[in-house]
This record gives sequence, C-alpha cells and structure tokens, in this order.
Amino acid sequence: MHEGRLTRGQLQAWALNRYYYQSIIPIKDSIILSRGPDPAFRRAWRKRVIDHDGDASHDGAFSNAASSSNPNNNEGGIRRWLKLAEATGLNPDDVRAGKGILPATRFAVNEYLNIVRSRTLLEAVASSLTEMFSRDLITLRMEKLRQHYPWLSGGLDYFEARLTQAPEDAEFAVNYVYHNAKTRAEQELAIQALRDKCDILWAQLDALHFAYVQPGWPPPGAFRIEQVKA
Amino acid sequence: MHEGRLTRGQLQAWALNRYYYQSIIPIKDSIILSRGPDPAFRRAWRKRVIDHDGDASHDGAFSNAASSSNPNNNEGGIRRWLKLAEATGLNPDDVRAGKGILPATRFAVNEYLNIVRSRTLLEAVASSLTEMFSRDLITLRMEKLRQHYPWLSGGLDYFEARLTQAPEDAEFAVNYVYHNAKTRAEQELAIQALRDKCDILWAQLDALHFAYVQPGWPPPGAFRIEQVKA
Repeated sequence: MHEGRLTRGQLQAWALNRYYYQSIIPIKDSIILSRGPDPAFRRAWRKRVIDHDGDASHDGAFSNAASSSNPNNNEGGIRRWLKLAEATGLNPDDVRAGKGILPATRFAVNEYLNIVRSRTLLEAVASSLTEMFSRDLITLRMEKLRQHYPWLSGGLDYFEARLTQAPEDAEFAVNYVYHNAKTRAEQELAIQALRDKCDILWAQLDALHFAYVQPGWPPPGAFRIEQVKA
Repeated sequence: MHEGRLTRGQLQAWALNRYYYQSIIPIKDSIILSRGPDPAFRRAWRKRVIDHDGDASHDGAFSNAASSSNPNNNEGGIRRWLKLAEATGLNPDDVRAGKGILPATRFAVNEYLNIVRSRTLLEAVASSLTEMFSRDLITLRMEKLRQHYPWLSGGLDYFEARLTQAPEDAEFAVNYVYHNAKTRAEQELAIQALRDKCDILWAQLDALHFAYVQPGWPPPGAFRIEQVKA
C-alpha cells in the first residue's frame, strides 16, 4: 500500500473487509462500556462509541451532506469509512451489507468480541492499546495514499479524525492499565491481550494478501476483483 | 496432500493446527448437549463427546498402550489425533499445549463455538453436517497418505475410527434437521449454518497454505518448519 503497488481492486478488497472491523468497533466498545465499573470510567469510554457511530443528525441513508466541509461535524467513523470505500469505487450499500467480505475477516474480528466479553476488564481495555501506535502510522498512510492513489484523496476523512481521537483514547486506556495491572500476573495478562489484538489485525491482513495478492485465491462467495477495471 | 507434494514440515503444520480444531470438537458438542431439548436427543448426541474424549482408562499421560491392537478400545479422537501428530515427528506435549498454532486457526475454530452458542439448536446441529461427506474423503485420504507418506501409516487410527463414527453421527443430525426445519426460513437457516461451517474449514486450510506453502509467511509466534529436516 505504501509503495503504491496496489491496484484499485486490491484497495477495494481492503476497504470492504476493513469496514467489517470498523463496524464492530462500537459494539466492542459497548461491551466494555457495559462492564465499566463506575460512571467516570463509562463517561470516558462512551466517547469511543460516539466517535464511531456519530450523532443522530447523520442517521438514515448514506448522504453526501456538507459534513466534510465542517471539521466539528460528527458523522462518525463508520460513515467516514464508508466514504473511503465509496472513493475506491465500491457501492456503499454492498459494503454496509458486508457482501463479499472474507470469512477469515469475520472470524478474526469476532474474536475481538470474544476477548472483550470473556476476559477481565483489564484485558479488554489493554486490547485497545494498539491505538498507541496509530498516530504515526496514520500520518504516514495519509501521505502515501495521497501520493500513490490521488483518486482516493476525497475519502480520507476517517484517518483525519483518528489523528486526534486515537491518541486521546490511548492515553486513557494506558493510564487505566497502568493503575490496574498491579501484579506481575496482571501485567502479563494485559500484555497477552495486546498481543492477541495484534494477531487479530495481522490475520486480517494475511487473509487479504492470500485472497488478493499471493496466491490470489478468494474463497467461495468472497469479493472478486473485476479484471477489466483493475 | 493427495498428490504427495507436501514436506514433512508441512504435514506437521497441518497436524498441529488441525489438533486445535479436534480439541474443541467435544467442547462444541458439549454446548449442543447443554442445549438438547430432551433425554433422547442428549443420549444420541453425547456419543460424540465420548468418541472424541475417550474413556477414563486412557486418562493421564500420553501412552503407547496396546490401544491400536484392540479395535473396541476407546482412547478417543483427540488422543488418536495426537498419535497422528506424533507420527509426523512433533512432540505431543507441544501439540497439546497448542504451541505455535496459527492465530487464524484459533479464530476460525472459535467461530464454530460462537455459532453453536448463539444460533438456534437447529442451526447448531446443521453445522455438523459436513460429516455427511467425510466417509468418502477419509477413505481417499487414508489411501493417499499411505501411498505418498508411508512413514505416517502408523498414525492413521483417527481416520479409521471416523469411517464408522462420522456416518452414524451424520445420519442422526440429518434426520434431526429434516424433521425440525419445517419452514422455508428454517431450511435457509440450516443451509447457511452448513455454509458457515464450510467457511470455517476452508479458512483453516487457506491460512495453512498462506503460512506454509505460498507465499509461506508464518505470522509471529507461529510454528516454523525446520529447514534441515524438511
């Protein structure tokens, strides 16, 4: 991606599959919210749900409202990701319906829900800490996307918003883990949760590579790159 | 596999990862057992747990007891799969500990647990119906394994036992689905559950192919094929 070697079809496969991940993030955060021990924790955490789901004024059909011209406008991360998918040339309704996403994407993403449901709250919070590293990556990614895929430039609002959201979220989460992982055993659990989250992200990329790069074998029912447009 | 083109290391990766699948099957079936509506259903279904877990006389350390000489001996499918893994040259304790299994294997297999927990009992039962097709496949597989990988021949007890177990299980399950999927909507749910199960099996093989065949990139922490022995 950062070397400009992806076709439009490969970027579509990425945007489509990553949408499924984006769409479950507020569900994941709602589960954590439901397990929050006190109002202060829940007040801090609910920001994440709002960041992704947006506010009521953006409900209903996908629209090309004047949202992008107003930086304070909260259309939400899911809507912003749909705009990115649309910029790759996908039909946003198909993306929203999850049509053609890889089963491996679903399995990896659903494991994230398993983790935040079944482990301790400390581990559920720690699993979000991949965000500690996202600002630098997103900065680089936006630069590279604009450079190599200029036709995608109109769809980068998602990343723009995450530049400020992710570091705020990560700061709260790392403080929570710092104060609540007191024993060595608890610290090990927190580290393992973060490792497992990395596996979840990594497995999604491996599945994309397998299906759309090398050997390039999408499983039955999965999105197929149109050879004509590629 | 059936063309004899796999190295010993690739067969090790397969046996190791598939062990994780085998090891959760009796957990999957215990969940279905716990949702069974009546004693008759549960009596029929508990056979599956016994088939995989074996009986008490085989508890404890992995042993090379006289089990294989007695066809009525029920050491259980999990133990038999460990013998297959051992025949590939793996340390059975490492296999049992799940050391080095692919995260993608875990995610796909755990999704099987999600399905039998969260969907209707009809769908949970229907998801087992891949067994309807296993007798012919297993017959062919045993023939091909003996032909191309004769050093593996001592580890095929698992498949031998499944030749009779799987058709019995499938017959009960297909009758259950036949009598309980009355509406078109129920039939569609049953079909979708079976499709999803196929995706779970397919995704495991794709992940193995990605990591150990092409491009051959095992993710961090995963089993690595020893170049010397390969």
